Amino acid sequence: MLSGSPSKFAVALFSGFQALDVFGPLDALNILSYSHPLELYILSTTLDPVSTIPAKAPTPGAVGQSIVPTHTYQDAPNDIEVLLVPGGRGTRDLEFTQPVVDFIEATFPNLRFLLTVCTGSSLAARAGVLDGKNATSNKLSFEWVMSQGPNVKWVRQARWVQDGNIWTSSGVSAGIDMIYAFIADQYGEDAATQVATVSEYTRNTDSTNDPFSKAA
Amino acid sequence: MLSGSPSKFAVALFSGFQALDVFGPLDALNILSYSHPLELYILSTTLDPVSTIPAKAPTPGAVGQSIVPTHTYQDAPNDIEVLLVPGGRGTRDLEFTQPVVDFIEATFPNLRFLLTVCTGSSLAARAGVLDGKNATSNKLSFEWVMSQGPNVKWVRQARWVQDGNIWTSSGVSAGIDMIYAFIADQYGEDAATQVATVSEYTRNTDSTNDPFSKAA
Repeated sequence: MLSGSPSKFAVALFSGFQALDVFGPLDALNILSYSHPLELYILSTTLDPVSTIPAKAPTPGAVGQSIVPTHTYQDAPNDIEVLLVPGGRGTRDLEFTQPVVDFIEATFPNLRFLLTVCTGSSLAARAGVLDGKNATSNKLSFEWVMSQGPNVKWVRQARWVQDGNIWTSSGVSAGIDMIYAFIADQYGEDAATQVATVSEYTRNTDSTNDPFSKAA
Repeated sequence: MLSGSPSKFAVALFSGFQALDVFGPLDALNILSYSHPLELYILSTTLDPVSTIPAKAPTPGAVGQSIVPTHTYQDAPNDIEVLLVPGGRGTRDLEFTQPVVDFIEATFPNLRFLLTVCTGSSLAARAGVLDGKNATSNKLSFEWVMSQGPNVKWVRQARWVQDGNIWTSSGVSAGIDMIYAFIADQYGEDAATQVATVSEYTRNTDSTNDPFSKAA
Protein backbone atom coordinates (compact mmCIF):
# COMPACT_ATOMS: atom_id res chain seq x y z
CA MET A 1 0.00 0.00 0.00
CA LEU A 2 1.32 3.45 -0.85
CA SER A 3 1.94 5.59 2.17
CA GLY A 4 -0.92 7.86 2.99
CA SER A 5 -3.60 6.24 0.87
CA PRO A 6 -7.06 6.93 2.31
CA SER A 7 -9.00 4.31 4.26
CA LYS A 8 -12.16 6.08 5.44
CA PHE A 9 -14.85 6.39 2.80
CA ALA A 10 -18.41 7.66 2.92
CA VAL A 11 -21.19 7.59 0.34
CA ALA A 12 -23.92 10.24 0.35
CA LEU A 13 -27.30 8.64 -0.38
CA PHE A 14 -30.68 10.22 -1.10
CA SER A 15 -34.00 8.96 -2.38
CA GLY A 16 -33.74 8.31 -6.10
CA PHE A 17 -30.00 7.72 -6.30
CA GLN A 18 -28.77 5.68 -9.28
CA ALA A 19 -27.84 2.17 -8.10
CA LEU A 20 -24.80 1.67 -10.34
CA ASP A 21 -23.44 5.15 -9.51
CA VAL A 22 -23.02 3.74 -6.00
CA PHE A 23 -22.35 0.06 -6.51
CA GLY A 24 -19.96 0.38 -9.44
CA PRO A 25 -17.42 2.24 -7.28
CA LEU A 26 -18.35 0.49 -4.03
CA ASP A 27 -17.97 -3.02 -5.44
CA ALA A 28 -14.44 -2.11 -6.49
CA LEU A 29 -13.80 -0.74 -2.99
CA ASN A 30 -15.34 -3.89 -1.46
CA ILE A 31 -12.80 -5.96 -3.39
CA LEU A 32 -9.97 -3.55 -2.58
CA SER A 33 -10.80 -3.80 1.13
CA TYR A 34 -9.73 -7.46 1.21
CA SER A 35 -6.14 -6.33 0.58
CA HIS A 36 -6.37 -2.77 1.91
CA PRO A 37 -8.59 -2.56 5.03
CA LEU A 38 -11.15 0.22 4.71
CA GLU A 39 -14.02 1.79 6.59
CA LEU A 40 -17.22 2.82 4.84
CA TYR A 41 -19.98 5.05 6.15
CA ILE A 42 -23.29 4.98 4.28
CA LEU A 43 -25.00 8.30 4.88
CA SER A 44 -28.58 9.47 4.52
CA THR A 45 -30.97 11.94 6.14
CA THR A 46 -32.35 9.17 8.38
CA LEU A 47 -31.36 5.57 9.13
CA ASP A 48 -34.34 4.27 7.13
CA PRO A 49 -33.46 2.26 4.00
CA VAL A 50 -32.92 4.52 0.98
CA SER A 51 -34.57 3.56 -2.30
CA THR A 52 -33.25 4.09 -5.81
CA ILE A 53 -36.83 5.06 -6.66
CA PRO A 54 -37.48 8.76 -5.99
CA ALA A 55 -39.88 9.20 -3.07
CA LYS A 56 -41.83 11.88 -4.92
CA ALA A 57 -43.87 10.89 -7.96
CA PRO A 58 -42.32 7.50 -8.73
CA THR A 59 -42.84 6.28 -12.29
CA PRO A 60 -45.41 3.43 -12.45
CA GLY A 61 -43.67 0.18 -13.35
CA ALA A 62 -40.22 1.44 -12.39
CA VAL A 63 -38.31 -0.99 -10.18
CA GLY A 64 -35.63 -0.26 -7.62
CA GLN A 65 -33.76 -1.40 -4.55
CA SER A 66 -33.28 -0.10 -1.00
CA ILE A 67 -29.98 0.23 0.83
CA VAL A 68 -29.43 0.47 4.58
CA PRO A 69 -27.54 3.58 5.82
CA THR A 70 -25.07 3.34 8.66
CA HIS A 71 -25.16 7.00 9.75
CA THR A 72 -27.23 10.13 9.23
CA TYR A 73 -25.74 13.33 7.81
CA GLN A 74 -26.14 14.86 11.26
CA ASP A 75 -24.34 12.02 13.03
CA ALA A 76 -21.71 11.29 10.38
CA PRO A 77 -18.22 10.56 11.68
CA ASN A 78 -15.89 13.54 11.30
CA ASP A 79 -12.96 11.50 9.98
CA ILE A 80 -14.23 10.94 6.43
CA GLU A 81 -11.35 11.09 3.97
CA VAL A 82 -13.19 10.33 0.73
CA LEU A 83 -16.80 11.28 0.05
CA LEU A 84 -18.56 9.62 -2.90
CA VAL A 85 -21.65 11.40 -4.24
CA PRO A 86 -23.82 9.51 -6.73
CA GLY A 87 -26.32 10.96 -9.16
CA GLY A 88 -29.73 9.77 -10.22
CA ARG A 89 -33.24 11.05 -10.77
CA GLY A 90 -33.37 12.16 -7.15
CA THR A 91 -30.89 14.95 -7.86
CA ARG A 92 -33.65 16.82 -9.73
CA ASP A 93 -35.49 17.36 -6.44
CA LEU A 94 -33.64 20.41 -5.19
CA GLU A 95 -35.50 20.58 -1.88
CA PHE A 96 -35.05 16.89 -1.05
CA THR A 97 -31.35 16.90 -1.85
CA GLN A 98 -30.55 20.12 0.02
CA PRO A 99 -29.26 18.16 3.08
CA VAL A 100 -26.77 16.41 0.76
CA VAL A 101 -25.65 19.75 -0.68
CA ASP A 102 -25.33 21.20 2.83
CA PHE A 103 -23.29 18.17 3.93
CA ILE A 104 -20.92 18.47 0.97
CA GLU A 105 -20.42 22.18 1.67
CA ALA A 106 -19.79 21.62 5.40
CA THR A 107 -17.57 18.56 4.98
CA PHE A 108 -15.50 19.47 1.93
CA PRO A 109 -12.86 21.51 3.78
CA ASN A 110 -12.00 18.44 5.87
CA LEU A 111 -12.10 15.90 3.03
CA ARG A 112 -9.03 14.60 1.30
CA PHE A 113 -11.03 13.71 -1.81
CA LEU A 114 -14.50 14.34 -3.21
CA LEU A 115 -15.73 11.94 -5.89
CA THR A 116 -18.96 12.39 -7.82
CA VAL A 117 -20.62 10.12 -10.36
CA CYS A 118 -23.11 11.16 -13.03
CA THR A 119 -25.45 13.98 -11.94
CA GLY A 120 -23.87 13.80 -8.49
CA SER A 121 -21.72 16.66 -9.78
CA SER A 122 -24.85 18.85 -9.73
CA LEU A 123 -24.96 18.43 -5.94
CA ALA A 124 -21.28 19.34 -5.62
CA ALA A 125 -21.88 22.32 -7.91
CA ARG A 126 -24.76 23.52 -5.77
CA ALA A 127 -22.47 23.24 -2.73
CA GLY A 128 -20.13 25.70 -4.46
CA VAL A 129 -17.09 23.45 -4.20
CA LEU A 130 -16.75 23.11 -8.00
CA ASP A 131 -16.63 26.84 -8.69
CA GLY A 132 -13.69 27.61 -10.97
CA LYS A 133 -12.85 23.92 -11.30
CA ASN A 134 -12.98 21.50 -14.20
CA ALA A 135 -15.73 18.90 -13.87
CA THR A 136 -17.97 16.63 -15.91
CA SER A 137 -21.32 14.90 -15.57
CA ASN A 138 -23.92 12.69 -17.22
CA LYS A 139 -24.07 13.42 -20.92
CA LEU A 140 -27.85 13.20 -21.39
CA SER A 141 -28.36 15.61 -18.46
CA PHE A 142 -25.43 17.89 -19.24
CA GLU A 143 -27.39 21.09 -19.92
CA TRP A 144 -29.37 20.77 -16.70
CA VAL A 145 -26.26 20.01 -14.64
CA MET A 146 -24.47 23.04 -16.12
CA SER A 147 -27.42 25.20 -15.02
CA GLN A 148 -26.74 24.08 -11.42
CA GLY A 149 -23.16 25.36 -11.53
CA PRO A 150 -22.72 28.37 -13.81
CA ASN A 151 -19.22 29.06 -12.44
CA VAL A 152 -17.92 25.54 -13.03
CA LYS A 153 -15.65 24.78 -16.01
CA TRP A 154 -17.76 21.94 -17.41
CA VAL A 155 -15.87 19.49 -19.62
CA ARG A 156 -18.09 17.75 -22.18
CA GLN A 157 -15.66 15.20 -23.55
CA ALA A 158 -14.41 13.30 -20.54
CA ARG A 159 -14.99 9.87 -19.07
CA TRP A 160 -13.94 11.52 -15.82
CA VAL A 161 -12.17 14.71 -14.73
CA GLN A 162 -9.67 15.19 -11.91
CA ASP A 163 -9.10 18.72 -10.71
CA GLY A 164 -7.07 18.86 -7.53
CA ASN A 165 -8.76 16.66 -4.96
CA ILE A 166 -12.09 16.54 -6.80
CA TRP A 167 -12.88 13.72 -9.21
CA THR A 168 -16.11 13.89 -11.25
CA SER A 169 -17.27 11.23 -13.69
CA SER A 170 -19.68 11.07 -16.58
CA GLY A 171 -22.90 9.09 -16.42
CA VAL A 172 -23.52 5.96 -14.35
CA SER A 173 -21.03 3.37 -15.68
CA ALA A 174 -18.30 6.01 -16.02
CA GLY A 175 -18.03 5.96 -12.24
CA ILE A 176 -16.47 2.51 -12.51
CA ASP A 177 -13.65 3.75 -14.73
CA MET A 178 -13.17 6.72 -12.40
CA ILE A 179 -12.86 4.59 -9.27
CA TYR A 180 -10.28 2.37 -10.95
CA ALA A 181 -8.29 5.48 -11.88
CA PHE A 182 -8.63 6.70 -8.30
CA ILE A 183 -7.52 3.32 -6.92
CA ALA A 184 -4.52 3.34 -9.29
CA ASP A 185 -3.67 6.88 -8.19
CA GLN A 186 -3.99 6.23 -4.46
CA TYR A 187 -3.15 2.54 -3.97
CA GLY A 188 -1.01 1.91 -7.03
CA GLU A 189 -1.54 0.51 -10.50
CA ASP A 190 -1.03 -3.05 -9.23
CA ALA A 191 -3.91 -2.71 -6.79
CA ALA A 192 -6.20 -1.40 -9.55
CA THR A 193 -5.19 -4.23 -11.85
CA GLN A 194 -5.76 -6.78 -9.12
CA VAL A 195 -9.25 -5.48 -8.35
CA ALA A 196 -10.15 -5.31 -12.07
CA THR A 197 -8.96 -8.90 -12.52
CA VAL A 198 -11.14 -10.13 -9.66
CA SER A 199 -14.06 -8.14 -11.06
CA GLU A 200 -13.28 -9.19 -14.67
CA TYR A 201 -13.64 -5.55 -15.65
CA THR A 202 -12.06 -4.12 -18.80
CA ARG A 203 -11.03 -0.64 -17.78
CA ASN A 204 -11.18 2.53 -19.84
CA THR A 205 -7.93 4.09 -18.59
CA ASP A 206 -8.06 7.21 -20.78
CA SER A 207 -10.11 9.92 -19.11
CA THR A 208 -10.53 11.74 -22.44
CA ASN A 209 -11.92 8.63 -24.18
CA ASP A 210 -15.62 9.39 -23.86
CA PRO A 211 -17.80 7.51 -26.34
CA PHE A 212 -20.92 9.28 -25.07
CA SER A 213 -19.80 12.91 -25.33
CA LYS A 214 -21.62 13.26 -28.64
CA ALA A 215 -24.87 12.95 -26.67
CA ALA A 216 -24.03 16.08 -24.70
CA MET B 1 -41.79 -4.00 -26.78
CA LEU B 2 -41.49 -7.39 -28.37
CA SER B 3 -44.47 -9.63 -27.74
CA GLY B 4 -43.98 -11.94 -24.80
CA SER B 5 -40.97 -10.26 -23.22
CA PRO B 6 -40.81 -11.02 -19.49
CA SER B 7 -41.81 -8.45 -16.87
CA LYS B 8 -41.54 -10.29 -13.54
CA PHE B 9 -38.00 -10.58 -12.22
CA ALA B 10 -36.59 -11.89 -8.97
CA VAL B 11 -33.10 -11.81 -7.53
CA ALA B 12 -31.92 -14.48 -5.07
CA LEU B 13 -29.86 -12.91 -2.30
CA PHE B 14 -27.77 -14.50 0.43
CA SER B 15 -25.22 -13.28 2.94
CA GLY B 16 -21.96 -12.55 1.14
CA PHE B 17 -23.35 -11.91 -2.33
CA GLN B 18 -21.19 -9.80 -4.64
CA ALA B 19 -22.70 -6.30 -4.93
CA LEU B 20 -21.96 -5.72 -8.62
CA ASP B 21 -23.25 -9.19 -9.57
CA VAL B 22 -26.61 -7.86 -8.45
CA PHE B 23 -26.47 -4.16 -9.22
CA GLY B 24 -24.82 -4.39 -12.63
CA PRO B 25 -27.83 -6.26 -14.05
CA LEU B 26 -30.41 -4.59 -11.80
CA ASP B 27 -29.34 -1.05 -12.67
CA ALA B 28 -29.86 -1.88 -16.34
CA LEU B 29 -33.29 -3.31 -15.46
CA ASN B 30 -34.05 -0.23 -13.37
CA ILE B 31 -33.40 1.93 -16.44
CA LEU B 32 -35.30 -0.47 -18.72
CA SER B 33 -38.31 -0.30 -16.40
CA TYR B 34 -38.89 3.37 -17.26
CA SER B 35 -39.80 2.32 -20.81
CA HIS B 36 -40.88 -1.29 -20.11
CA PRO B 37 -42.77 -1.60 -16.81
CA LEU B 38 -41.36 -4.41 -14.66
CA GLU B 39 -41.83 -6.06 -11.29
CA LEU B 40 -38.89 -7.07 -9.14
CA TYR B 41 -38.90 -9.37 -6.13
CA ILE B 42 -35.82 -9.30 -3.91
CA LEU B 43 -35.61 -12.66 -2.16
CA SER B 44 -33.76 -13.86 0.91
CA THR B 45 -34.20 -16.39 3.70
CA THR B 46 -35.67 -13.68 5.96
CA LEU B 47 -36.81 -10.09 5.45
CA ASP B 48 -33.75 -8.79 7.32
CA PRO B 49 -31.32 -6.71 5.24
CA VAL B 50 -28.78 -8.89 3.45
CA SER B 51 -25.12 -7.89 3.57
CA THR B 52 -22.50 -8.33 0.90
CA ILE B 53 -20.20 -9.33 3.77
CA PRO B 54 -20.47 -13.04 4.58
CA ALA B 55 -22.13 -13.59 7.98
CA LYS B 56 -19.60 -16.24 8.92
CA ALA B 57 -15.98 -15.26 9.49
CA PRO B 58 -15.99 -11.80 7.84
CA THR B 59 -12.57 -10.51 6.85
CA PRO B 60 -11.36 -7.70 9.16
CA GLY B 61 -11.32 -4.41 7.27
CA ALA B 62 -13.62 -5.64 4.52
CA VAL B 63 -16.45 -3.23 3.75
CA GLY B 64 -19.88 -3.98 2.38
CA GLN B 65 -23.48 -2.87 2.00
CA SER B 66 -26.89 -4.23 3.03
CA ILE B 67 -29.94 -4.55 0.80
CA VAL B 68 -33.56 -4.88 1.88
CA PRO B 69 -35.44 -7.98 0.62
CA THR B 70 -39.08 -7.77 -0.43
CA HIS B 71 -39.97 -11.46 0.05
CA THR B 72 -38.57 -14.61 1.64
CA TYR B 73 -37.90 -17.75 -0.37
CA GLN B 74 -40.83 -19.36 1.41
CA ASP B 75 -43.22 -16.53 0.58
CA ALA B 76 -41.92 -15.71 -2.90
CA PRO B 77 -44.58 -14.95 -5.50
CA ASN B 78 -45.18 -17.90 -7.84
CA ASP B 79 -45.24 -15.82 -11.01
CA ILE B 80 -41.50 -15.19 -11.33
CA GLU B 81 -40.46 -15.26 -14.99
CA VAL B 82 -36.77 -14.44 -14.67
CA LEU B 83 -34.63 -15.45 -11.70
CA LEU B 84 -31.24 -13.73 -11.30
CA VAL B 85 -28.69 -15.53 -9.10
CA PRO B 86 -25.55 -13.61 -8.13
CA GLY B 87 -22.26 -15.05 -6.93
CA GLY B 88 -19.90 -13.87 -4.26
CA ARG B 89 -17.91 -15.19 -1.33
CA GLY B 90 -21.11 -16.38 0.31
CA THR B 91 -21.48 -19.13 -2.30
CA ARG B 92 -18.60 -20.97 -0.62
CA ASP B 93 -20.80 -21.62 2.42
CA LEU B 94 -22.69 -24.66 1.21
CA GLU B 95 -24.91 -24.90 4.29
CA PHE B 96 -25.88 -21.24 4.31
CA THR B 97 -26.72 -21.19 0.60
CA GLN B 98 -28.69 -24.45 0.60
CA PRO B 99 -32.04 -22.54 0.75
CA VAL B 100 -31.03 -20.71 -2.44
CA VAL B 101 -30.14 -24.01 -4.12
CA ASP B 102 -33.44 -25.53 -3.00
CA PHE B 103 -35.33 -22.50 -4.30
CA ILE B 104 -33.63 -22.70 -7.71
CA GLU B 105 -34.43 -26.40 -7.95
CA ALA B 106 -38.08 -25.93 -6.94
CA THR B 107 -38.68 -22.83 -9.06
CA PHE B 108 -36.77 -23.64 -12.23
CA PRO B 109 -39.53 -25.69 -13.91
CA ASN B 110 -41.83 -22.66 -13.74
CA LEU B 111 -39.25 -20.06 -14.79
CA ARG B 112 -38.98 -18.67 -18.28
CA PHE B 113 -35.33 -17.73 -17.75
CA LEU B 114 -32.60 -18.41 -15.22
CA LEU B 115 -29.68 -15.94 -15.18
CA THR B 116 -26.56 -16.40 -13.07
CA VAL B 117 -23.58 -14.10 -12.59
CA CYS B 118 -20.09 -15.12 -11.47
CA THR B 119 -20.08 -17.99 -8.94
CA GLY B 120 -23.87 -17.88 -8.93
CA SER B 121 -23.57 -20.69 -11.47
CA SER B 122 -22.27 -22.90 -8.64
CA LEU B 123 -25.66 -22.55 -6.95
CA ALA B 124 -27.50 -23.44 -10.17
CA ALA B 125 -25.12 -26.37 -10.66
CA ARG B 126 -25.84 -27.66 -7.15
CA ALA B 127 -29.56 -27.41 -7.95
CA GLY B 128 -28.94 -29.79 -10.85
CA VAL B 129 -30.48 -27.50 -13.45
CA LEU B 130 -27.19 -27.07 -15.36
CA ASP B 131 -26.56 -30.80 -15.84
CA GLY B 132 -25.72 -31.49 -19.47
CA LYS B 133 -25.83 -27.78 -20.29
CA ASN B 134 -23.17 -25.31 -21.36
CA ALA B 135 -22.36 -22.75 -18.67
CA THR B 136 -19.59 -20.47 -17.46
CA SER B 137 -18.49 -18.78 -14.25
CA ASN B 138 -15.94 -16.58 -12.53
CA LYS B 139 -12.50 -17.23 -13.98
CA LEU B 140 -10.50 -17.05 -10.73
CA SER B 141 -12.91 -19.53 -9.08
CA PHE B 142 -13.42 -21.75 -12.11
CA GLU B 143 -11.93 -24.97 -10.68
CA TRP B 144 -14.02 -24.74 -7.52
CA VAL B 145 -17.22 -23.98 -9.46
CA MET B 146 -16.57 -26.96 -11.75
CA SER B 147 -16.32 -29.16 -8.66
CA GLN B 148 -19.87 -28.12 -7.74
CA GLY B 149 -21.27 -29.35 -11.07
CA PRO B 150 -19.33 -32.29 -12.50
CA ASN B 151 -22.05 -32.96 -15.10
CA VAL B 152 -22.10 -29.42 -16.46
CA LYS B 153 -20.37 -28.56 -19.76
CA TRP B 154 -18.24 -25.74 -18.38
CA VAL B 155 -17.06 -23.22 -20.97
CA ARG B 156 -13.83 -21.47 -20.03
CA GLN B 157 -13.65 -18.85 -22.76
CA ALA B 158 -16.94 -17.01 -22.58
CA ARG B 159 -18.05 -13.63 -21.36
CA TRP B 160 -21.43 -15.32 -20.97
CA VAL B 161 -23.12 -18.50 -22.19
CA GLN B 162 -26.72 -18.98 -23.27
CA ASP B 163 -28.01 -22.55 -23.37
CA GLY B 164 -31.75 -22.72 -23.87
CA ASN B 165 -33.40 -20.60 -21.20
CA ILE B 166 -30.34 -20.49 -18.96
CA TRP B 167 -27.85 -17.65 -19.20
CA THR B 168 -24.64 -17.79 -17.13
CA SER B 169 -21.96 -15.10 -17.05
CA SER B 170 -18.32 -14.92 -16.09
CA GLY B 171 -17.15 -12.99 -13.04
CA VAL B 172 -18.80 -9.91 -11.56
CA SER B 173 -18.67 -7.26 -14.33
CA ALA B 174 -19.49 -9.85 -17.00
CA GLY B 175 -23.03 -9.88 -15.66
CA ILE B 176 -23.48 -6.40 -17.13
CA ASP B 177 -22.64 -7.58 -20.64
CA MET B 178 -24.93 -10.57 -20.14
CA ILE B 179 -27.92 -8.51 -19.05
CA TYR B 180 -27.51 -6.23 -22.07
CA ALA B 181 -27.46 -9.29 -24.33
CA PHE B 182 -30.56 -10.58 -22.54
CA ILE B 183 -32.31 -7.21 -22.91
CA ALA B 184 -31.42 -7.16 -26.62
CA ASP B 185 -32.74 -10.70 -27.01
CA GLN B 186 -35.99 -10.15 -25.14
CA TYR B 187 -36.82 -6.45 -25.60
CA GLY B 188 -34.97 -5.72 -28.81
CA GLU B 189 -31.62 -4.24 -29.76
CA ASP B 190 -33.03 -0.71 -29.64
CA ALA B 191 -34.02 -1.15 -26.00
CA ALA B 192 -30.54 -2.43 -25.11
CA THR B 193 -28.91 0.47 -26.94
CA GLN B 194 -31.19 2.96 -25.22
CA VAL B 195 -30.39 1.59 -21.75
CA ALA B 196 -26.65 1.49 -22.50
CA THR B 197 -26.78 5.10 -23.71
CA VAL B 198 -28.47 6.23 -20.50
CA SER B 199 -25.95 4.24 -18.49
CA GLU B 200 -23.01 5.38 -20.68
CA TYR B 201 -21.94 1.75 -20.84
CA THR B 202 -19.73 0.42 -23.64
CA ARG B 203 -21.04 -3.08 -24.20
CA ASN B 204 -19.06 -6.20 -25.01
CA THR B 205 -21.54 -7.74 -27.45
CA ASP B 206 -19.46 -10.82 -28.31
CA SER B 207 -20.09 -13.60 -25.79
CA THR B 208 -16.86 -15.34 -26.85
CA ASN B 209 -14.73 -12.22 -26.27
CA ASP B 210 -13.46 -13.04 -22.80
CA PRO B 211 -10.31 -11.12 -21.83
CA PHE B 212 -10.14 -12.98 -18.51
CA SER B 213 -10.31 -16.59 -19.69
CA LYS B 214 -6.53 -16.86 -19.45
CA ALA B 215 -6.94 -16.67 -15.67
CA ALA B 216 -9.06 -19.86 -15.69
